[in-house]
Amino acid sequence: MHEAFTDVRAREWDTGDGETVRLAVVGCGGFARGVALPAIDECEYAEATVGVSGSADNRDAVVERFGLATTDYDGYAAGERADEYDAVYVATPNRLHLPHVETAAEQGKAVICEKPLEATVGRAERVVDACAEAGVPLMTAYRMQTDPLFRRLREFVADGGVGQVSKLAGDFTFPVLSGSRGPEQWRLDEELAGGGALVDVGVYPLNVARFLLGKEPEWVDGYVRTSEPYAPVDEHVAFEVGFSDALGSFSASFSGHPNAEFTAYGEDGVVRVTDAFQPDRGRRLVVETADGRVTLDGLGGGEVREQFDYFAHAVSTGAAIEPDGADGVADVRLMAAVYERAER
Amino acid sequence: MHEAFTDVRAREWDTGDGETVRLAVVGCGGFARGVALPAIDECEYAEATVGVSGSADNRDAVVERFGLATTDYDGYAAGERADEYDAVYVATPNRLHLPHVETAAEQGKAVICEKPLEATVGRAERVVDACAEAGVPLMTAYRMQTDPLFRRLREFVADGGVGQVSKLAGDFTFPVLSGSRGPEQWRLDEELAGGGALVDVGVYPLNVARFLLGKEPEWVDGYVRTSEPYAPVDEHVAFEVGFSDALGSFSASFSGHPNAEFTAYGEDGVVRVTDAFQPDRGRRLVVETADGRVTLDGLGGGEVREQFDYFAHAVSTGAAIEPDGADGVADVRLMAAVYERAER
Repeated sequence: MHEAFTDVRAREWDTGDGETVRLAVVGCGGFARGVALPAIDECEYAEATVGVSGSADNRDAVVERFGLATTDYDGYAAGERADEYDAVYVATPNRLHLPHVETAAEQGKAVICEKPLEATVGRAERVVDACAEAGVPLMTAYRMQTDPLFRRLREFVADGGVGQVSKLAGDFTFPVLSGSRGPEQWRLDEELAGGGALVDVGVYPLNVARFLLGKEPEWVDGYVRTSEPYAPVDEHVAFEVGFSDALGSFSASFSGHPNAEFTAYGEDGVVRVTDAFQPDRGRRLVVETADGRVTLDGLGGGEVREQFDYFAHAVSTGAAIEPDGADGVADVRLMAAVYERAER
Repeated sequence: MHEAFTDVRAREWDTGDGETVRLAVVGCGGFARGVALPAIDECEYAEATVGVSGSADNRDAVVERFGLATTDYDGYAAGERADEYDAVYVATPNRLHLPHVETAAEQGKAVICEKPLEATVGRAERVVDACAEAGVPLMTAYRMQTDPLFRRLREFVADGGVGQVSKLAGDFTFPVLSGSRGPEQWRLDEELAGGGALVDVGVYPLNVARFLLGKEPEWVDGYVRTSEPYAPVDEHVAFEVGFSDALGSFSASFSGHPNAEFTAYGEDGVVRVTDAFQPDRGRRLVVETADGRVTLDGLGGGEVREQFDYFAHAVSTGAAIEPDGADGVADVRLMAAVYERAER
């Protein structure tokens, strides 16, 4: 196996001299409580100290389960507990990212903001501007970029592991109405979300493609299908992404059997990841070259903890943050272009 | 496992009363000698009796290896050995299909013609017209439609095995310059082939999608990339196929690591076939539903023998042929539309 895979969990970004960064979690919804906070609990360089929520139930839950101090959105905006955190994790619905980032920036706090960065290109740009003007670090929470598997895969591809990559493909199907989630959720609210399956889950293969190739697309195209109760946002989207020397064909859905996969097709091999994008899932990697077909199971995952440690380490050491605000804006812009094409 | 898979090799089309059909093989190139003739040798209802080729070497080869009588194209057109065959298998470069089909039709012989049916829509329609006017059966040689796996998969999908199918994906990468094949081959000749990777291998996922859903697309879109020595034909193509209730995202290439895969994404499950389109390969099927993930290996293949037995059985019993001329014309028309879109 290629040397990239000999030490899969390598933290090549970790200088060892990071210090603990105290986080306020702004927005204590299902993902924050179920995925982010448990991951932060396991972090080396980050700890959650404050939970911000408009829901008394959610505030109670994070007090009880994670021992956080809490406040509501007004309290947060007023700086009520600002001396209890060094950085802010924004995990609200997309269209509410901007005001919470602006608050953090005004308080001089570093920011890690969920993707998509905002609901529109203009607002995403304002997120970046707010942090730049305040001189605070901004990370877009692209957890796949801190997933050990995808970091190793990038090294493998950059090292010519599959030769020149000519095609990419991927799908992320997240049945948004499964479990206890009903049609009234914000992900189906065009205003709050800024889109449907594309912005919520299609952004994963899109960002991973850009991350893996280290290149920006030259064009996109898109096709949307939707039905009740998903309409007016996209239930299904298929989109094409044209790089200078590669074509990407991606899809995303809010309905259907759960699925997450990513494939890169090269001159000398194919790499395929299944269970690719679900939080903290052991991923399966199949590498096929002239040497044969190798399957590696259980790689990756743990990427949410890695994400918060990566962010906290960068904030405390002053290191550059790779999934920065510009990275987040780029995807919002590309996704807006996909929707524009889909409307024709 | 679903009952469709309990008797994978079922020949539900086989009434048991077919009689042997003698075939002339028109065009004795690499595929005919390496794949088709060995498969016909194993057939129950078909036997090859005559080989037609413009190459003395290829005529000698089929005499020696398969014991055929032979003639050249002039001899075939003149009906030289017409009393030694009942049907004609046309396996020449695409743009030469029409004259050979016309000859067969004039001789009153049933026809099985390689895909794509011809190099242009107009010529493909003339293939169909020639057979219709002469009253001879015409089959487009869509061997995947006689692959046991894809027949079972169609039953499984039709029976709701994965629920409503909302997305399809597939890739066929065939490194056309691998082995002894140089850039002078007819597959890279725009006039003779009628296109590049799309018509030669992209037609596989396209036809399988139509076969599996039993529906016709409402629109297509396409993107082409090419380079020397493939230009002017397409080295890489990505194409979208819009069905009334499903989006298909497919790709095909003449360069890159060999790959063949097909996936159907449904409301209640996902079915994925790898090693999907190569001739006579044991295929891998992964079926994922709420019940879990089942992998079936070694299914399928043998589809070339199945194809000739299916054809011969239909010809001798007068049964309807499913992959008929209209099926072949439909793909030529869709692929022309993909190229038209790609030119914009």
